[in-house]
Amino acid sequence: MTERPDQSPLTSPRSERVRKAAALTGRSARRKQGRFRVEGPQAVRSLLTHRADLALEVFLTVRARADHPELASLAAEAGAPLREVDEQILRAMVRDSGDGGGDQGGADASPGAAVGGALVSPQGAIALATFSAEDPAAALGAVRALPADGPVTVVVLHEVRDPGNVGTMIRTADAAGADLVLLTRTSADPYSPKAVRASVGSLFHLPVLTGAEIDALLPALAAADVTAAATSGYADSDLFDTALPARLAWILGNEAHGLDEATLAAAPLTVRIPLAGHAESLNVHTAATVCLFETLRRRRLEA
Amino acid sequence: MTERPDQSPLTSPRSERVRKAAALTGRSARRKQGRFRVEGPQAVRSLLTHRADLALEVFLTVRARADHPELASLAAEAGAPLREVDEQILRAMVRDSGDGGGDQGGADASPGAAVGGALVSPQGAIALATFSAEDPAAALGAVRALPADGPVTVVVLHEVRDPGNVGTMIRTADAAGADLVLLTRTSADPYSPKAVRASVGSLFHLPVLTGAEIDALLPALAAADVTAAATSGYADSDLFDTALPARLAWILGNEAHGLDEATLAAAPLTVRIPLAGHAESLNVHTAATVCLFETLRRRRLEA
Repeated sequence: MTERPDQSPLTSPRSERVRKAAALTGRSARRKQGRFRVEGPQAVRSLLTHRADLALEVFLTVRARADHPELASLAAEAGAPLREVDEQILRAMVRDSGDGGGDQGGADASPGAAVGGALVSPQGAIALATFSAEDPAAALGAVRALPADGPVTVVVLHEVRDPGNVGTMIRTADAAGADLVLLTRTSADPYSPKAVRASVGSLFHLPVLTGAEIDALLPALAAADVTAAATSGYADSDLFDTALPARLAWILGNEAHGLDEATLAAAPLTVRIPLAGHAESLNVHTAATVCLFETLRRRRLEA
Repeated sequence: MTERPDQSPLTSPRSERVRKAAALTGRSARRKQGRFRVEGPQAVRSLLTHRADLALEVFLTVRARADHPELASLAAEAGAPLREVDEQILRAMVRDSGDGGGDQGGADASPGAAVGGALVSPQGAIALATFSAEDPAAALGAVRALPADGPVTVVVLHEVRDPGNVGTMIRTADAAGADLVLLTRTSADPYSPKAVRASVGSLFHLPVLTGAEIDALLPALAAADVTAAATSGYADSDLFDTALPARLAWILGNEAHGLDEATLAAAPLTVRIPLAGHAESLNVHTAATVCLFETLRRRRLEA
């Protein structure tokens, strides 16, 4: 699916190559082209440092190249061709036609898309990279490939629909030392520009696999001696008072509806996050943060 | 500043009253009109239940009134006039002209504004409510009015610029049992529609004051025997290994730059949140969640 990079200089913002890069805002174009866009010097550096195998091509303005000299050497080490381009070319590469292209969240498609309320620009640096297609078998394989002994933390995003949440939760999973992130089919695409930006490089720091099927995943986790855990406001056990298994998979659900009944019933461990004020619930990323950092805290106590 | 509600029926989406409600997407219109918009049955219920004193007027579709019968009785108890309006009127009341009106984040201004990547509608229910203007003296007064003895948790948002983050952090502060949220002048407005939506009612669950001045606030906290605490990747003390004072104010900073040097240096307690993976940092809401729920966990151990 991936094409050999065109060697000719990029001089027009209306060129086919620029338009194809811009189209990667949409999921269907990413699937068709077999690649996604990585924006900003920090994310490009993470890609080249941690997943050089995925890098196809790097685009830098003269200024970004001068400001981040390590990017050129990392690109060379990765064997990814480096293109010096004008700022206007780079901006055109992130400017989608605006059809949303199948992404959740049309706000992603505007020029200098709004993220967290602020206008973002690629800050002079873009990379194009390959990704693994959705693959239920690969997700199961990653579970089987976990170390057979010792503590393990897995994060499963099941029907998490907002790409910003998906990216942020990958970042938080990384920060809390998770070993693996799995996304079920109905979750947002971690390769959407909004998710990639929100992950701030963490997408390249740990294995992230898409296309998992929850019905097959739960037995696979059990077979790997990993306890699937879910949060529920109705659970009897309080997170802070409950022993957490050394091998744990946090299953996190939809923003609006949480986990479906069947998945909740199938999870061997359900815990309640204590709420002290009048808030009726937490958002899914907040819940993930509480669970993952409590897991990290326990791991350190037990180490 | 607040006008007496007009009693005439609302029949045109182009009427002055509808346009004025729609304009409340912008901060300048909120300041000028002295009121803000509360959208959705859950948020309207929280307003009427917890801060009936702020409610000016409630707008419901026939269907929302039937689906949420408690809203009409709560509105009556609050003394807030209830208007039955068509769905198209309600939608027009959240549809801004699109100039952004001084809000951070232009994405807020579209019809059915995108929140967390999903299109939201007011789901048949809107309230208009008054709010307290930015007032540095009131913020200091709220610190002085804290209970003189026993545990206290204060959250200070200093230069948190994204309204979604501000709303979510108010929700998380509420859930973790915080007693007070203070926003400095340079933070986003908690009364913007995006912040109100993200707070999911928590804006009405605990005191939230705007316009605080950090230079005056830090000595006021000290005078109230409340220890100002900040997070820093360079701090010597690890959050999980550090004794937390029973009276604590978490000072949380800007999304991109964190806390300024002067504020960080002035905070009597700085802690490092342990990061286990390759992530270089946490986003400000994630950091707030870890600190606030660790505080809640300790409070319960000590209770």
